[in-house]
Amino acid sequence: MAEAEAINVDLEIIVHGTQGLAKPELRLWLRMLSTTKLISQEIRRRLRTEFGATLPQFDLMAQLYREKDGLRLGELSKRTMVTNGNVTGLVERLETDGYVQRVTPDGDRRVTVARLTEAGTALFAQMAAAHEGWLQDMMADVDPAAIKALWSEIGEVKTSASNHLSAGPLE
Amino acid sequence: MAEAEAINVDLEIIVHGTQGLAKPELRLWLRMLSTTKLISQEIRRRLRTEFGATLPQFDLMAQLYREKDGLRLGELSKRTMVTNGNVTGLVERLETDGYVQRVTPDGDRRVTVARLTEAGTALFAQMAAAHEGWLQDMMADVDPAAIKALWSEIGEVKTSASNHLSAGPLE
Repeated sequence: MAEAEAINVDLEIIVHGTQGLAKPELRLWLRMLSTTKLISQEIRRRLRTEFGATLPQFDLMAQLYREKDGLRLGELSKRTMVTNGNVTGLVERLETDGYVQRVTPDGDRRVTVARLTEAGTALFAQMAAAHEGWLQDMMADVDPAAIKALWSEIGEVKTSASNHLSAGPLE
Repeated sequence: MAEAEAINVDLEIIVHGTQGLAKPELRLWLRMLSTTKLISQEIRRRLRTEFGATLPQFDLMAQLYREKDGLRLGELSKRTMVTNGNVTGLVERLETDGYVQRVTPDGDRRVTVARLTEAGTALFAQMAAAHEGWLQDMMADVDPAAIKALWSEIGEVKTSASNHLSAGPLE
């Protein structure tokens, strides 16, 4: 499902008007979802305006940045939640731009991995620093101690959700 | 960007392995994102297995459930973050299944709105109750007081982010 162009609307209000009647778990979920969408939209917007990049490009480069030896496309797809077909297109585009190269590692000619070029590594380092700064900007009005506490408390929600998945807990 | 089939992997770990070095704001963001994706994947899975429905269908029906008089497709698109073209396809599919009808309100023949049929209203009421129950299941191990506190604390993050958007605060 393609996402519409990011717009500044409050999804928490729009999605469910019945929040006063909703159970606390549903209210918390809607707030988490709307906050995540809000921040995610802003990150998409800044990636586009400051780097001419998309979020899937950023996510894909982040994976390759961590794996200096490169990753097979199937593994990249799994790690980025981008479908195989789209990963191929993204990699081809980044290859054309000179940020990614596809290589055959020594010893196994059947395998091709994608990895960042020097230019790609330098660009991603810039993007990652900017991304971290955007998040600091966006959370500037929140007390630093509250940010650390939230990290831990949301961890409890994550653990609980992971323990109650219909397909079993997280790998 | 299409999403790959949901898989049970922990995106927080996979996305950034450098978390120990990251600023608290980035760590919180990665945790919010991975928790939201985890819960969202489970909701998608349960909608599919229990109702044969997709998340965009659910979101679209939620909007129509709230607006008994119906909504124009452009408005539906805006509220659901689904592109115009995809909203048309979703509405057509729900119309074929008998859950949505397109009508021309009195007094303005140029306008067509989509609204839920009786069957659609009954189905959505069932889905919404199930959805609320899934969230209660997933958060079952979290203290109820912590859930309410989190709702308020994430509200602070949301307000801060909204106040620091490059395109100006939320409407």
